[in-house]
Amino acid sequence: MIGGGLGSLIGPAHRLAAELDGQIALVAGAFSSDAERSVRSGESYGVDPARSYPSVEAMLIGEARRPDGIELVAIATPNHLHLAAARAALGAGLAVISDKPATATLAEARALASCVARSARPYALTYTYTGYSMVRQARARVAAGAIGRIRKVVVEYSQGWLASAAEAAGNRQAGWRVDPARSGVGGCISDIGVHAFNLAEFVSGEAVTEVLADLGSVVPGRRLDDDATVLLRFGNGARGVLIASQIATGEMNTVRLRLYGDAGALDWSIGAPDQIALSRMDGPTEILREEEREIAQTAARAPGLSGPQGSFLLAFANIYRDFAAVLRGDGQGADLQGIDAGLRGMAFAETSVLASREQRGWVALRP
Amino acid sequence: MIGGGLGSLIGPAHRLAAELDGQIALVAGAFSSDAERSVRSGESYGVDPARSYPSVEAMLIGEARRPDGIELVAIATPNHLHLAAARAALGAGLAVISDKPATATLAEARALASCVARSARPYALTYTYTGYSMVRQARARVAAGAIGRIRKVVVEYSQGWLASAAEAAGNRQAGWRVDPARSGVGGCISDIGVHAFNLAEFVSGEAVTEVLADLGSVVPGRRLDDDATVLLRFGNGARGVLIASQIATGEMNTVRLRLYGDAGALDWSIGAPDQIALSRMDGPTEILREEEREIAQTAARAPGLSGPQGSFLLAFANIYRDFAAVLRGDGQGADLQGIDAGLRGMAFAETSVLASREQRGWVALRP
Amino acid sequence: MIGGGLGSLIGPAHRLAAELDGQIALVAGAFSSDAERSVRSGESYGVDPARSYPSVEAMLIGEARRPDGIELVAIATPNHLHLAAARAALGAGLAVISDKPATATLAEARALASCVARSARPYALTYTYTGYSMVRQARARVAAGAIGRIRKVVVEYSQGWLASAAEAAGNRQAGWRVDPARSGVGGCISDIGVHAFNLAEFVSGEAVTEVLADLGSVVPGRRLDDDATVLLRFGNGARGVLIASQIATGEMNTVRLRLYGDAGALDWSIGAPDQIALSRMDGPTEILREEEREIAQTAARAPGLSGPQGSFLLAFANIYRDFAAVLRGDGQGADLQGIDAGLRGMAFAETSVLASREQRGWVALRP
Amino acid sequence: MIGGGLGSLIGPAHRLAAELDGQIALVAGAFSSDAERSVRSGESYGVDPARSYPSVEAMLIGEARRPDGIELVAIATPNHLHLAAARAALGAGLAVISDKPATATLAEARALASCVARSARPYALTYTYTGYSMVRQARARVAAGAIGRIRKVVVEYSQGWLASAAEAAGNRQAGWRVDPARSGVGGCISDIGVHAFNLAEFVSGEAVTEVLADLGSVVPGRRLDDDATVLLRFGNGARGVLIASQIATGEMNTVRLRLYGDAGALDWSIGAPDQIALSRMDGPTEILREEEREIAQTAARAPGLSGPQGSFLLAFANIYRDFAAVLRGDGQGADLQGIDAGLRGMAFAETSVLASREQRGWVALRP
Repeated sequence: MIGGGLGSLIGPAHRLAAELDGQIALVAGAFSSDAERSVRSGESYGVDPARSYPSVEAMLIGEARRPDGIELVAIATPNHLHLAAARAALGAGLAVISDKPATATLAEARALASCVARSARPYALTYTYTGYSMVRQARARVAAGAIGRIRKVVVEYSQGWLASAAEAAGNRQAGWRVDPARSGVGGCISDIGVHAFNLAEFVSGEAVTEVLADLGSVVPGRRLDDDATVLLRFGNGARGVLIASQIATGEMNTVRLRLYGDAGALDWSIGAPDQIALSRMDGPTEILREEEREIAQTAARAPGLSGPQGSFLLAFANIYRDFAAVLRGDGQGADLQGIDAGLRGMAFAETSVLASREQRGWVALRP
Repeated sequence: MIGGGLGSLIGPAHRLAAELDGQIALVAGAFSSDAERSVRSGESYGVDPARSYPSVEAMLIGEARRPDGIELVAIATPNHLHLAAARAALGAGLAVISDKPATATLAEARALASCVARSARPYALTYTYTGYSMVRQARARVAAGAIGRIRKVVVEYSQGWLASAAEAAGNRQAGWRVDPARSGVGGCISDIGVHAFNLAEFVSGEAVTEVLADLGSVVPGRRLDDDATVLLRFGNGARGVLIASQIATGEMNTVRLRLYGDAGALDWSIGAPDQIALSRMDGPTEILREEEREIAQTAARAPGLSGPQGSFLLAFANIYRDFAAVLRGDGQGADLQGIDAGLRGMAFAETSVLASREQRGWVALRP
Repeated sequence: MIGGGLGSLIGPAHRLAAELDGQIALVAGAFSSDAERSVRSGESYGVDPARSYPSVEAMLIGEARRPDGIELVAIATPNHLHLAAARAALGAGLAVISDKPATATLAEARALASCVARSARPYALTYTYTGYSMVRQARARVAAGAIGRIRKVVVEYSQGWLASAAEAAGNRQAGWRVDPARSGVGGCISDIGVHAFNLAEFVSGEAVTEVLADLGSVVPGRRLDDDATVLLRFGNGARGVLIASQIATGEMNTVRLRLYGDAGALDWSIGAPDQIALSRMDGPTEILREEEREIAQTAARAPGLSGPQGSFLLAFANIYRDFAAVLRGDGQGADLQGIDAGLRGMAFAETSVLASREQRGWVALRP
Repeated sequence: MIGGGLGSLIGPAHRLAAELDGQIALVAGAFSSDAERSVRSGESYGVDPARSYPSVEAMLIGEARRPDGIELVAIATPNHLHLAAARAALGAGLAVISDKPATATLAEARALASCVARSARPYALTYTYTGYSMVRQARARVAAGAIGRIRKVVVEYSQGWLASAAEAAGNRQAGWRVDPARSGVGGCISDIGVHAFNLAEFVSGEAVTEVLADLGSVVPGRRLDDDATVLLRFGNGARGVLIASQIATGEMNTVRLRLYGDAGALDWSIGAPDQIALSRMDGPTEILREEEREIAQTAARAPGLSGPQGSFLLAFANIYRDFAAVLRGDGQGADLQGIDAGLRGMAFAETSVLASREQRGWVALRP
């Protein structure tokens, strides 16, 4: 693992998710550029101190010398370090699984796409919402025509934790997210907006072709956006609206996707992540749940953790499981989000930031 | 009452709301241009057949001759008849309470505004959501600074009943709503979008100064919009987004307003109309309810109907009660929505329709 | 109307519900034993002062003399007056529609049953929950076998408004409810417990044959129960539990019924009164709603008030509509709750009170 | 780990929870009495095949010989094996953390209590609901007087997965749960009823002194209960009702606790496990959430997993963390549920089963 050391939000989730199926183990890391901190972080994960390195380079060199060296790198750093870390790891012949967004800017994403194309190794992004079994179920149902042709998409990701200047109060998580040098071109749009964007494309099966963005830096002193509303136009003509906000006091982590089609509608929300509501014109709304027999047979794996109680971890682990299958060569990875999704996400974030700043109206989305 | 006869959705609600407090009674009407149908409609309301007229003019003449003639006219017709009916009634020296939107077009609304200005009689619109005691409570709390300066507004009004071409199947309610000749310049935006717009301004206390609209006529064959998303900019700089849709399968009548301020946030939804959620930064969310002692003392009047069970009727009746107080001369009507709100609503609808059609981007809202 | 004067919770609801369909009108009343108060109450309803009487007897005599005298009496008094009022009205050849419970004691209910049997006039109780169109829909689905043989019933009715000694603070509604002289043998069990009991029997189609009651007088100084839990055994062997409480702080008016059968389950709650959730073994849960086409065709009548917004009033009005149909002779009244349901309710309340007091364990329920 | 091998529901949860903080690692196990299956199970956990044993005895002997032998045993078997496994492990000087219920019968629980008393090693039960940070928060608030003296307790644990004879269809999880030889004296009451019982006592801080139970074996052919309602009386006089059912079709895993006191009320539900609703008389209801600053400071540890998304695993891990602290000697373990809670749970289950069978009415609960 690169990054993800003490104080990290996402590091422990990577470790747990990766190890859940017993196919991948966290055995080495460049957890921090502070050597001593890297070792202490490694210890919190049970990693041999000799394999806790102070830099990506040191890790790649050190591990390459070992007979049991790492095969896979997980990137859990702030955004500005994604490109260098991914490039180095791919260059060393390692597979890469990375936090979103792919990089800090669209130009970087394009550079990374070239690296991935040249490399023979798998690359995937942990768009965690695509790992939820009911999100995958939703995608499958939509693809099978359950709601007909999609007409309208409403997707929202709202948080309230940046409604005040948490960064000024010493919150490390807030600190890098509001800093252009570490977060990249976008703030809220890159941190959570891309999740909403990816979720909408993933489930609908339709690509966004144009955006019209209205971003704001609401909390005084912020240089990056902390609030965003983006109108969407999809390839099939459907309209959409994406709401992402980090100044939405009272919202903990609200994620919701609604798709309205010409034969029905679908609603998924993080508030009840183990179910989807499927409405049909003139018929009752059906609540489909993870535990139902037919669905459970395809979704189940660690049943003690299924249901709303274990959804996030399982979703994360589903991504790792698929990635492990690809590494072993016995999986297709159809639900994995690779560099193409990464490029689209970066294009969405950067286009939105620039178009909003210049009030350009509708702008084509070109990855 | 003008309109509101047999088959009307809103007529019975007018009658019940008006009579709830025993201060106003439905005694005459021009319920239909078909004389016999008008009489039958009147009978369903217990109206003397002699006072069920086949036209507004007939009613005004007939009632003027009576010693106990009507003092007040309620307008419950399709939109294209609003202006003529209101003008005639005001001209006859009667007070007018009218369904929204005020008229079918902005030009008509301006004409009506002149009539109202020249008349000495009160005029009000039944923006029913402004009658809910908790919506009024929300407005009062916001005005008192409970959530600080408003930063972001998210308002939604979604229905699914026009997701298919109900008008083609003979649904009368659908018929006039999708017909430009009877509905006016807007479809969904005039029917429910103006409710959402009015609700946002009413509770926030801030005026929308610019809009950017994305309207669609989704169901094949429709000439008016049946789906709308509108970005909002408020006078104080706050951003907003308004979602109104009649093609949202699975949504019965979803109305929700969220306001995010720099000291807290407020959430009201028709799903639990007798409560508001008030969040404060770093504190717990409070659920305020109609029945709580302090609130109940100001809201109560027909307690058997309070709570979620009777909200719609009470809300409607609250508007009538305020109007009756104004008629009697012992009320201020601070919460009543008059021709100014009517003008703003029409400006919002018409500006949105035109700006969306021409993709003009941000457009100033000038009533 | 008898009772239901100024300050009454339920009087205005009776009036609105009765008049909603234009078939019944409130034209006379014995609203209060204080003659002047009775007149003022009548005025609030628009009743001719000459027809606002100071007693039931005065009303029956006065109305009998009129050519347009009343045909129907609605009883909206505290419980201890129900028997005398119903007896007098039936004796005068009038139909009676009465608040629940039927009477103050089981002995009174038996006496009333004799009166009703001797009378040729219809008698019905306003068990309002049986008027909700989706409760009726639930009953019909259960009767049609949608959930199979019923195995378990969980029914709850909880309120918090009597959690403190509101009666000592001058609350009139609380005053008579906690007074054995006016409320009868039961407190909470008679006020809301009988609603839950009736609802369970109405929807399940199964009769309770045995009860085991645990009642408490929780607030110091109360002589009647304000909290009740009753285990139920149904005729088909199904188990049940009924929870009724008026000391449940935080609950406004929570009513919920769940039926579990051997083929599925059904859930209805006042929180979303216009829908029922129907679960089938191994299948998705279906959300059935009032507005759906097939259901709407049978339920609709005043569509402006349908949905969650107008449910309580419509439910109440449905009972009046059925009663009017019976009066006219063109209705079966299959959903009306007559004196048999009244007897069962009183037997339930009184048996529960006595059995709990004496800790008698399971006791047969004999109406 | 003893038990918890391939096909186990709870084994993987033990492993993840134990390892989450990096203080405990799964290094050996008697996962199955089938030697080969035990090895394969161990492999799924990354356990050295040499340390996957075919029996508890073999494991204790094998590990005792190693310099790095285990210090702690987790018991994840069906109930009938709990006593022998715990006794053997404690006898070998190892600490024990065990699934609930403590044993299969009350007599066994008493025997185990003697073992624990004689042993110097810690013993704890994984009553997972007591690990949720908001359940702990609820307990602390109640202890601090937030809702005053408790008057009424309503606790429910409902599932629908045993509504049909899943055991006959080859479901292994169902198989042992409905088998008296493996599950012990109780079915549903031992499997989930004890969770509800423990949760009620844990949060209320009051002990149940009497129970009145109504248990049923609803699905034909079952010898153990699959549905239970138990009336409760607490030491302070409060009344309660506990509903536990495994035949509640449509319920996935519904767990909810409501406490009503003389100063307020508290509501916690697995549907929103990261919050509690705290109602006060005549004041608004407050929604307290895990993420709020003050609470987060005491609850946080793996923030990436906080909120509703990671609750179950974190709750489980909180128990392991406390246990590790006790093992290290630097923790009090005030929230840990030891053999006393185990005895109470078994007393509750066994008393309920016997008292229900013999219809004994209220019975004292004596652990």
